Amino acid sequence: MEYINNYIEANKDRFLNELFDFIRIPSVSAKPENKQDMYAAAEFLKNKLLEAGVDFAEVNETAGHPVVYAEKMIDPKLPTVMVYGHYDVQPAEPLELWHSKPFEPEVRDGKIWARGADDDKGQLYMQVKAFELMNKTGNLACNIKFMVEGEEEVGSMNLGDYCKANKVKLKSDVIVVSDTTIIANDTPSITTGLRGLSYVQVEVTGPNRDLHSGLYGGAIVNPANALAKMIAKLHDDNYKITIPGFYDDVVEISREERDLMALAPFNLENYKKSLDIDAVKGETGYLPKEHTGIRPCLDVNGMWSGYTGEGAKTILPSKAFAKISMRLVPNQDPEIISRLISEYLTKIAPEGVRVKVEYLHGGNAYVSPVDIAAYKAAEFAMEKTFGKQPIPVRSGGSIPIIALFEKELEVKSILMGFGLESDAIHSPNENYPLFNFYKGIETIPYFFNKFSKTAFV
Amino acid sequence: MEYINNYIEANKDRFLNELFDFIRIPSVSAKPENKQDMYAAAEFLKNKLLEAGVDFAEVNETAGHPVVYAEKMIDPKLPTVMVYGHYDVQPAEPLELWHSKPFEPEVRDGKIWARGADDDKGQLYMQVKAFELMNKTGNLACNIKFMVEGEEEVGSMNLGDYCKANKVKLKSDVIVVSDTTIIANDTPSITTGLRGLSYVQVEVTGPNRDLHSGLYGGAIVNPANALAKMIAKLHDDNYKITIPGFYDDVVEISREERDLMALAPFNLENYKKSLDIDAVKGETGYLPKEHTGIRPCLDVNGMWSGYTGEGAKTILPSKAFAKISMRLVPNQDPEIISRLISEYLTKIAPEGVRVKVEYLHGGNAYVSPVDIAAYKAAEFAMEKTFGKQPIPVRSGGSIPIIALFEKELEVKSILMGFGLESDAIHSPNENYPLFNFYKGIETIPYFFNKFSKTAFV
Repeated sequence: MEYINNYIEANKDRFLNELFDFIRIPSVSAKPENKQDMYAAAEFLKNKLLEAGVDFAEVNETAGHPVVYAEKMIDPKLPTVMVYGHYDVQPAEPLELWHSKPFEPEVRDGKIWARGADDDKGQLYMQVKAFELMNKTGNLACNIKFMVEGEEEVGSMNLGDYCKANKVKLKSDVIVVSDTTIIANDTPSITTGLRGLSYVQVEVTGPNRDLHSGLYGGAIVNPANALAKMIAKLHDDNYKITIPGFYDDVVEISREERDLMALAPFNLENYKKSLDIDAVKGETGYLPKEHTGIRPCLDVNGMWSGYTGEGAKTILPSKAFAKISMRLVPNQDPEIISRLISEYLTKIAPEGVRVKVEYLHGGNAYVSPVDIAAYKAAEFAMEKTFGKQPIPVRSGGSIPIIALFEKELEVKSILMGFGLESDAIHSPNENYPLFNFYKGIETIPYFFNKFSKTAFV
Repeated sequence: MEYINNYIEANKDRFLNELFDFIRIPSVSAKPENKQDMYAAAEFLKNKLLEAGVDFAEVNETAGHPVVYAEKMIDPKLPTVMVYGHYDVQPAEPLELWHSKPFEPEVRDGKIWARGADDDKGQLYMQVKAFELMNKTGNLACNIKFMVEGEEEVGSMNLGDYCKANKVKLKSDVIVVSDTTIIANDTPSITTGLRGLSYVQVEVTGPNRDLHSGLYGGAIVNPANALAKMIAKLHDDNYKITIPGFYDDVVEISREERDLMALAPFNLENYKKSLDIDAVKGETGYLPKEHTGIRPCLDVNGMWSGYTGEGAKTILPSKAFAKISMRLVPNQDPEIISRLISEYLTKIAPEGVRVKVEYLHGGNAYVSPVDIAAYKAAEFAMEKTFGKQPIPVRSGGSIPIIALFEKELEVKSILMGFGLESDAIHSPNENYPLFNFYKGIETIPYFFNKFSKTAFV
């Protein structure tokens, strides 16, 4: 399929410039001040899909940020692939740690550096350009739909309703998502599992105002100390989560499957070195890849209380806060988990403080089978372009909406991502290698061709 | 001494307006951006002292914020009183909790509302106006010196050197400080004890960058969770501090003295109500007033890590910080204490994170005797103007420099403050009742008169 590489070669600079324009729109879904940028990003995408040749494209309002929908139906007898992605990005803070500005993309050392370079503007745009390639060269082998949301980074709160309300429009035979990683550029892989998520915010209130720490210190319960104590009690010394009932719904993975997982390459020394840590520690009895792949976990994502400026301020703070996320495995329910942690924190809070736990968002874990036509087509495509059979792996991350697609739209998703762990998504200096961007565009058409022939067999 | 009330009555509006001008200068010593305001406040004070009639006044440079020095020597045979105070104030944050702007003083409900209204601009300015009153009416009975620093709220780092370098200039028979509280306006008191302070900042570092909490969560040690666990380990369930050696130098107070302290009025229900807390908790075996008066304590003053903005950001933070202050009692050494906490935190830090503890500042505790002429003169003065003998009390706060005065200048300090606990110093909506401001100006001349006659007897 020489036309693939020819088309990429002839258009590669334009592809990149368009992605840069997309990235320059600071579509941070978490921030109210970026509301207009969300619309700008959605409109940008709609226009690029129209230029690429969809039958129609629209920006659909939701209760939150809009969904971009587009489709090209070439033949009702052919299978239909729906591409899902998201045009929103994580906040860029802390800004001072970036080596170049997060919303002014630039190429250095063969990589695109910017917030969204990988997650998910870079990966989504591979899908848009692969569609353009297939369409403009007359090689589109399946019907195609695009559903691109603007709330993935804040929990896809409105996409469930959108799916429920548009079941006919969204009918497809598989959903393809490029929002995950491969093990390495010489070790392709396909993500077959995602963890679920339950994200809460904890507020601990002590006295009704910040107090002088000398006049009151020692006599009353300090909410910052109390919160620290409560957080400390969420794990035991074996890094097992102590919330009663937390593990009740966890299905243990068989020894056999764990042995298979262990075949994926992992170098502990390199891992520690890349993070500059002297030891890895996780739930006793599991390996690092198992900690993120098959076990739930609990992490403080943010924590704040009292005076955080320069120098010393001697106050006993009135309030202390923490943002806590729990990554879940299949069969754990995010709302039940949020209730369990809320009850537990309330129970262990010391006398003298009050606790409020707010459930911010969550989603179920997902596991995709490896014996269906769509997985086989993805495996075929990657083997063609990488020269090696991809390894199925379970990722520690979450795309909460994937489990919901299965429930609401009754269709499986294939997580054919092209990112690398070193892309620093959600961190300062997010990046995406040009190799991976173009490799994705090259690979996707093989998937469509294969799936077109095998979906209904 | 009718001239006292007559002079106050004739000048009360001017006194207040001048204080307001003083307060309007945002002399926040902790903030580098307020450096010029520190000089403006020092110059303001110098000029007001000159107007009040000192022989000379000067703004003396130090390695940090300047010291204002002034004196009026009327007769070398008379005793010399040195007034110590500070023109710097605490940061005003969090600004959104103030009902009026912190640096735009206003009078509501008979109180001055502003940062520094009490601590210490309001209280210091009573001393300045009492001097004016004594001097302009021809009733100054002692020599007087003023030493007013700009670094009290950040640990008086340079006043020790200033005292050492100016021992002759600063020679006096007693130091008078108005920077403390009375129990209530119908229950006058004099502070005879102050706690010491050891203030540290803790930095816990995990991975070299903020990480995606899904891709890494569960496999590596989260520095925010680690910090919480470390803070939790600083107290046991009886609110006793667990740092090895922390209590080694604490001198236990006799049952007899504790029984005397218990005579000071204290209403637990009102105390809880005023703070809106349902329980008070402190070191087992001691009463609330003892917790702040005679026992050391440890409090988180500030704590921060990861994402603290709106909404949910799924990161595993690279770093976590806490500001921790320990209030000390007589015989505890702040630098030894800072070393003990540093060693302990380093020891209990889990594998996988690194800990750095920085000693920000500290000072020794102080206890003043109640049988010396200066204390008796203060007792006499307050009895005259309040109509009741003041109670000697031990405050939980710290004025680290007071212990240093005794060491370097070999002179005792009398803590004749007029504030109320409800003045919310160091908090939003700091205030100072007009009653207390004018009562202070009225009381101070009685002290000077009495001390003039009794100091050398």
